[in-house]
This record gives sequence, C-alpha cells and structure tokens, in this order.
Amino acid sequence: MKNWVLFVITAVVVFLLGMLASNVINRKNEAKFAYTPKVTIGENEPRNDVWGKNFPKQYQSYIQTLDTTFASYQGGSKMVDLLEHDPLLVVLYAGYGFSKDYNQGRGHYYAIEDLQNTLRTGAPAGPDDGPMPGTCWACKSPDIPRLMNEQGIAETYAGKWASKGHEVVNNIGCADCHNPKDMSLQITRPALIEAFESMGKDISKATHNEMRSLVCAQCHVEYYFNSKTPKEGVPYLTFPWKNGMSVENMEEYYDNIDFKDWEHSISKAPLLKAQHPGYEVYMTGIHADRGVSCADCHMPYKSEGGQKFTDHHIQSPLNNVANSCQVCHREEANKLIENVYTRQSAANENRLKLQEQLVRAHIEAKKAWDLGATEKQMERIMQGIRHAQWRWDFAAASHGGSFHAPVETARIIASAMDVAQTTRIELTRLLAELGYTDAVPMPDISTKAKAQAFIGLNAEKMLADKKVFKENVIPKWLEKAKERESKMEIKSGVTPK
Amino acid sequence: MKNWVLFVITAVVVFLLGMLASNVINRKNEAKFAYTPKVTIGENEPRNDVWGKNFPKQYQSYIQTLDTTFASYQGGSKMVDLLEHDPLLVVLYAGYGFSKDYNQGRGHYYAIEDLQNTLRTGAPAGPDDGPMPGTCWACKSPDIPRLMNEQGIAETYAGKWASKGHEVVNNIGCADCHNPKDMSLQITRPALIEAFESMGKDISKATHNEMRSLVCAQCHVEYYFNSKTPKEGVPYLTFPWKNGMSVENMEEYYDNIDFKDWEHSISKAPLLKAQHPGYEVYMTGIHADRGVSCADCHMPYKSEGGQKFTDHHIQSPLNNVANSCQVCHREEANKLIENVYTRQSAANENRLKLQEQLVRAHIEAKKAWDLGATEKQMERIMQGIRHAQWRWDFAAASHGGSFHAPVETARIIASAMDVAQTTRIELTRLLAELGYTDAVPMPDISTKAKAQAFIGLNAEKMLADKKVFKENVIPKWLEKAKERESKMEIKSGVTPK
Repeated sequence: MKNWVLFVITAVVVFLLGMLASNVINRKNEAKFAYTPKVTIGENEPRNDVWGKNFPKQYQSYIQTLDTTFASYQGGSKMVDLLEHDPLLVVLYAGYGFSKDYNQGRGHYYAIEDLQNTLRTGAPAGPDDGPMPGTCWACKSPDIPRLMNEQGIAETYAGKWASKGHEVVNNIGCADCHNPKDMSLQITRPALIEAFESMGKDISKATHNEMRSLVCAQCHVEYYFNSKTPKEGVPYLTFPWKNGMSVENMEEYYDNIDFKDWEHSISKAPLLKAQHPGYEVYMTGIHADRGVSCADCHMPYKSEGGQKFTDHHIQSPLNNVANSCQVCHREEANKLIENVYTRQSAANENRLKLQEQLVRAHIEAKKAWDLGATEKQMERIMQGIRHAQWRWDFAAASHGGSFHAPVETARIIASAMDVAQTTRIELTRLLAELGYTDAVPMPDISTKAKAQAFIGLNAEKMLADKKVFKENVIPKWLEKAKERESKMEIKSGVTPK
Repeated sequence: MKNWVLFVITAVVVFLLGMLASNVINRKNEAKFAYTPKVTIGENEPRNDVWGKNFPKQYQSYIQTLDTTFASYQGGSKMVDLLEHDPLLVVLYAGYGFSKDYNQGRGHYYAIEDLQNTLRTGAPAGPDDGPMPGTCWACKSPDIPRLMNEQGIAETYAGKWASKGHEVVNNIGCADCHNPKDMSLQITRPALIEAFESMGKDISKATHNEMRSLVCAQCHVEYYFNSKTPKEGVPYLTFPWKNGMSVENMEEYYDNIDFKDWEHSISKAPLLKAQHPGYEVYMTGIHADRGVSCADCHMPYKSEGGQKFTDHHIQSPLNNVANSCQVCHREEANKLIENVYTRQSAANENRLKLQEQLVRAHIEAKKAWDLGATEKQMERIMQGIRHAQWRWDFAAASHGGSFHAPVETARIIASAMDVAQTTRIELTRLLAELGYTDAVPMPDISTKAKAQAFIGLNAEKMLADKKVFKENVIPKWLEKAKERESKMEIKSGVTPK
C-alpha cells in the first residue's frame, strides 16, 4: 500500500477519536449546568419574573427587549411614529384607528404599556366603554392563556377592552410559548390551532423545529374578529387561512364572507386592514424554505459563562449578525446588512409609489361621490380600492416581509399596482362622464398634523382624553392586579426525576 | 497534558500531511495532461474546429450547444417562437423588427444560421440591400475580431448587413474570448472596453474572475447603434453606460441624447428597444455580489477521463445542477430548480399584467391621435409610454434576469407599472376632453397571425422573400467564404516553453 493511503486512513481514525473525546467532555459540561428549579411554576403562572427564578439567563435576555438605544426598525425599542414618518398613512387609514396613532411595534416587554397608551384603544371611562373589544388583549400577555383556562376562550374575548384591563398586566413572555411542566414549546392561542384545522392540518403533529416558528405565528399573522361564529356577538379571533395563506387566498376568503374592517371615511370603500402577516409572508421566502425558523435568527443560541442558551432578547437579527446570519453566511456583517437594506429599499421604493396611487384613488372616489356617482357606478371601483389597499397593506404591514420574502413582497406590491391602475382608469372615466376631466387636486398632507386635520381628526382632544384615562383608569387596573397576584402562591421547586 | 489534547494535535498534523501528499499527486497528474498543441493557432483564426484540434474536450463540449432536445428556455436549442407564445409582443414591437420574428435565443452554435434566417434581417437581394447594418454581425462570430484587425472597427460596422455575409460565417466561439497565444481570456469587442472607459473604469485591470463574466458582457448587454460618434454615418456599437448601468441611468442617457430605436407604428411613441441587459441585471443580484461569475454556473468545471476542464456547453445551469448550483448549495436538484421557477413565475405574473397595460396604452394613444389630439397634448403621454415600455423590455429581455436578480427585476417591473398608470390616467383624461369616455376597445390579438395582421404585417410576403434570399444569396456567401478560408494556412503546433 502506498504511503499516502496510510496517511489518510490514520488521519481519519485519529480525527474520529478526537471527535469522540470532545463529545464526552461536552456531555459532562451539560450535566453540570442542568435545570435545577428554584420554584415550581404553576399551570396558570403569567408572571415572567417567577419563571425567571428558574431560568435567569433566558429571563435576563428577555428583559433586554426594554432597550431603547435603537429605533424599533433597527431591533431596539425606541419609539418610531410611523404617521410622522409617512403622513400618507393617515389618509390611507382614514376612518380607522391606525389614522389616529401608529407607532412601530416595540419589544415584547412594552406590549401592555404600548397598548394602554395608543390612541387606538381610546380613553374608556369604565369597563363597558371605549372603541375596542376584549379580543384586542389576545396577543399581549400570558394572562390570556390564564384567563382562557379560568373563564373560557369566548369569555376572554367578550366585552369591552376596558373590562379586562385589570386582568391583563404581564407583558408577552414565558407562558405564551412554554409549557411550565417541561418547558417544551406549546401553542397557547386557540386561533392558530383552529386556523390550521380550517386548512385540514393538525398542528399538534408539528416538529420541534416548526414549533420554533409556530409559537411566533400565534400572533405575527393576519387575523380578524369574527362576530358571527363560533359565538354570535363575540368578536372571536380568527385567522382567514381556510383557502390558503397567500394574499389572494385571504382576499377571496374575506370577499366570500363579505367582511370589512371598516368603511374608508373619504372614499367609502369597504376596506380590510392587513394586520401583520409576518408568518404567512415568511413562509414564502427562502429562509423558511430552507428550514430556518423564526427563533434561529431572532432568538439565536448565545453563550455566557460556558453555558449555551436561547437568547430571549427577541430583536432584529441585524443587531446580532454574528449569532444569526453568520452562523450560515460567511460574509462580513456589513455586507450582510447591506444585502438586507438593498432588498428593503427596492420594496420601499415601489410601496411608496403605490401609497401615492392609493391616496389619489380615495380622493378621486370622493370627488365622484360628490359629483353624484351612483352606487352601481362605484361598485367595481370600491372593490378595486379594497383589493389594491389590502394588497398594499399586506406587503407594508408584514413585519420584515421585504427581507423574509422579497420576491413575494414585490409580487404583491406589483399586483396591487395593477389593480390600482385598472381602478383609477375606470374612476377617471367615471369622473369624465360626470363632467370632470381635470386632475383631482390633492390636499396638503405633508405632515401628520395636516393629514389628520384633513381627515377630520381632533388630535388635541384625543390626547387630552387619553391623559385623563391614563391618570384615572390605569392606576386602578394595576392596583387591582397587584392585589390579585399577591394572593398567588409560589411554591419552592422540586428537582425533576 | 490530557489525552484528548494529544489526540487533536496528532489528528491535525496527520491531516495536514495527508493534504500535502494529495497535492503532490495532483500536480503530477496535471503535468501528465498539460497542453501539447497539434496546430499553431494564428492571431486571426476564426475557425472553431481549428482551435478544437488543440482543445478537443472544450471544442466537443462547445458542439453540444447544437443539442435541440430541450427548448431554449430549458438550456437546449429547440426553437421557441416567442410571438406565438405571447402575441402581445407583436403589438408592443409594432413598427420594429421584433414584431416580425422573435425566437428565443439558442446555443452559440446557431448564431449565424439564426441571424440569416430571422425575418428581422429581411431578404436583401445584394450587398447594399436590406433593413439592417453591418453592426448586426458584431456579436455573432469570431470573424468580427478578424475583420476588425484586418479592416478596422468602424469599417467592420459600416455598410449593410448583407455586405458582410460572406465574411461572417463562423459561429460564436473560441476567438471571441480567448487569446490564441496563451488561451487567456481577452476582450475582443471594443464596445465593452469603451463603455467601461465612459464610466471611468479601465477594464484591462480586471481580475481573471471578473473576466469570466466580462467576456460574456461583450454581447449579453444593452446596446445601441450610435450613428453620430465616433464616425458620422457609421452605426457604431455603443453601450449606454456613461451614467451607470441601472434601468434609470440608461433611460436618462437615451433621453439626454434624444435617441429612439424606432417610432411605434400605433401610438407614435419614440421607443427604445432594450436588447438583452443580462450582465447589467446580473450585476445587481446576489450571485454577482458573492463573486460568482457567469462561467461558474453556465460553464462549470467538468471532469472526463480524470481531466478537469471548463465545460464549453454553455447552457442553462438548470440542465447541469450538479456542477453548477450544487457546488455551493446543498439542496436537492429538484428543490433548487423549484426555487428558480418560483422566482421566474413571480416576475412573469406581473410582467404579463404590465404587457397588457402597455398594449392598452398604445391603442388608447392611437385613439387620441385619431380624435385630433395635438403634439403638445400628447407630449408627456409619449414620454410615459416610452419610459414604461423601456422598463418593461429591460426586465423582459434581460436573459435570466428574474433569476439573476429577482429583486431588481421586480423593482423595474413595478416602476414601469407606476409610470404606465400615471400615463394611462392622463390619456384617459385627454380622451375624455376629446369627447371619448368609453373604454377603448381592444382588437383580437389572441394569436401571432391575428396580431401581425392587426399591425399591418404581411407575414406571407416576408416568408416568401426570405425563402428567395435563403435559396439565392446565402449559398453564394458560404461558397465565397469557403474559398477564402481554404487559403488560410494551418501550421503544425510548437510545444510551449
């Protein structure tokens, strides 16, 4: 046998022995740091700091979602007012809560505070007052699975938002995704289970890797409140996935049940608000296709003091390129970030053009109504505005969509442009028939304040009312919650068998 | 020292020794198969089979571009008639050669035959007859660098296409990209060198890896014929890159020099034909960003009889996934192909919608002219149609663009949609001012024949004329070329030092 063959065989054998040795050592280290519970976590324990006694590293990383160093689009929790940033949004959402107040979503630790503070939830004076239903709490807190266990699902959604203010006080956290018995991932929100059932899929068969995205999909999805089924009069949280998860599938779903989120106050179009179809769009992208889960990039493994654990500082991977992107991609961090920005700016460029077309469509439609257009003349135009805005919103509101699935996001934006074109041309013809052949003048909506004034919002009053609510109502909620939680027993931990 | 440390050190040392041994053996093998020339290849040698005597493997793989098993979009050379496939193209190119005949590009071995056969080159009766200039041969043959060396650059472009028919007979091949002295890659087309110069870049400084794309960029780019500079009256092949290589950069370039490829015969819009900006679009994509060259995927290394060589069967990488994609991507071939198709179909979906918008714009513009619209009323509309069609064509004609750069391709399509919308709305208002508020009826253009009849083409006459040309003119060209080439001496090879 030639010498080099012996060399190679020896190298392989010695290499394998080295790997074996390394494995034994690793196992030993793992055993040393295994889970030793300080407290027993109850089935309905919503308090993150109680869970944190057993899992200090995970809890301490979760607390980092408080950090306001960076703006939220950079992965931090600094407040970004999207209406200031882009006043056209005020007009696009005219007649709907998002025209009043629309800040970029922040870290999980701000879930409750931000919902209490937003003008969208209004300034309820008592438990049966205000614009929003109890369902609006559904994604904000581990108090929700607790309430569902204690009261029932529909009962948790029922009533006004203000009626649950004293019950829902713990920010999105441990119990939303984990089973307290063995810390396995679990789905605590029935809407996700029911949505998969509607597609004929049994989510209880999901793999652990799928669960690392599905726990996020409990909330980061498109949804609506179904006030007809399963319980008449209760705004039941429902994901419109029965026909599939594409923008066209859901559009068809909503059209079939003749659902609208609101009627636009300028164009009168029956509109849909795309919430944040993050999971649905992510599923069409290359990372999902390659089995990369939400947690792989947004909660990558981290090492501290020789311990490896999942980083619960959920944030933009761009704040943490070394542990997210660079685990698979060998490029420099700057290059990878630039690649993301390239995708985002290509999508934004045309999204902004589309927004302008949609604003024009709303204002042109108003002109047609003002000139005496009939319902019949406006029928297809109303439907066109509905579809174009739905598709725009789907692309715009999908968290991270232009990175998660740049091709699908671009496809959706262009499809919206196509619908907008057909609609606005029909509208232009109708305006001509009604005797108007000029370009319909656009108002000055160059700032949030001007745009809100244009759509008839009284920002000062909304803020003053909110101030009263925050001073009078919220402290009582928190006091009541504190008293309730003080009675919840914390037992000391039992070492697992 | 612990045992496992010793294990690892031993493993590393032995592994490196193995690598060293393997390297020595590889070098020995390489030496055994080194280049031993059978013939000396002359400086102006255009004949691929002569080069093939020294490089039989490269030559034999090049010959595979003849294969017609697959359609051309699948990487084969089976003919695909794009006008049959998509009759809207006939209307979009009305007044221009591509409305007569537009087959998908085939393998390099068909370069001459396909150019002789296409109806776009017409049926010249003699050397000074026909619609196209000599410049049209520029990318088709290694006879072009020969002619440029023998006659000069402008002289090669000058005259009618038919005046060079007997000179240009060897299909795109060896001498287009290789230096016969040392087989290094070289740029033989001055247009590419001049285009980089116009951007302030010296292409002679390009790395070998860049050259593996730049030799392709000699032809797979956007270009036009500049009949003013550098030589008045000679249609000089020019790439419009002076302001940059994006679709907007080139649009600005053409607008600034008030250039048009043709006037559309229906709308009268002064249009630009995007040729095939493959290189420019590829440069915006992730593969270019990662340093993957054209040759890496379209001419990957191949091994035969223990010899490694560059596969000159230039084709779609989808026909050769194992040697192209799978060198970097670990997924199954079917999955990788599906990923490509997903990108292509997303782009196609909206490209087709855009085509329909553009066809409508042309026909609506004709209606406006017919109703007495003035030049001034039509000015912005003509410019809008020009820009929208240019951007559409840029995305549509860029070979492989929807895969090479799906984000940029989508961005371009959506930007064209935006321009089309603004333009058609203005057109709709103008039609209304001229008394017409209905939708402008569309003709039946559901087949190539119907569409060609609609734009006033006499397909039968074109085919009959072409038949005469092929029977009378081409045989004489080939005979003359054969006689000329029979006088070209082939010397036996000299072993390189």
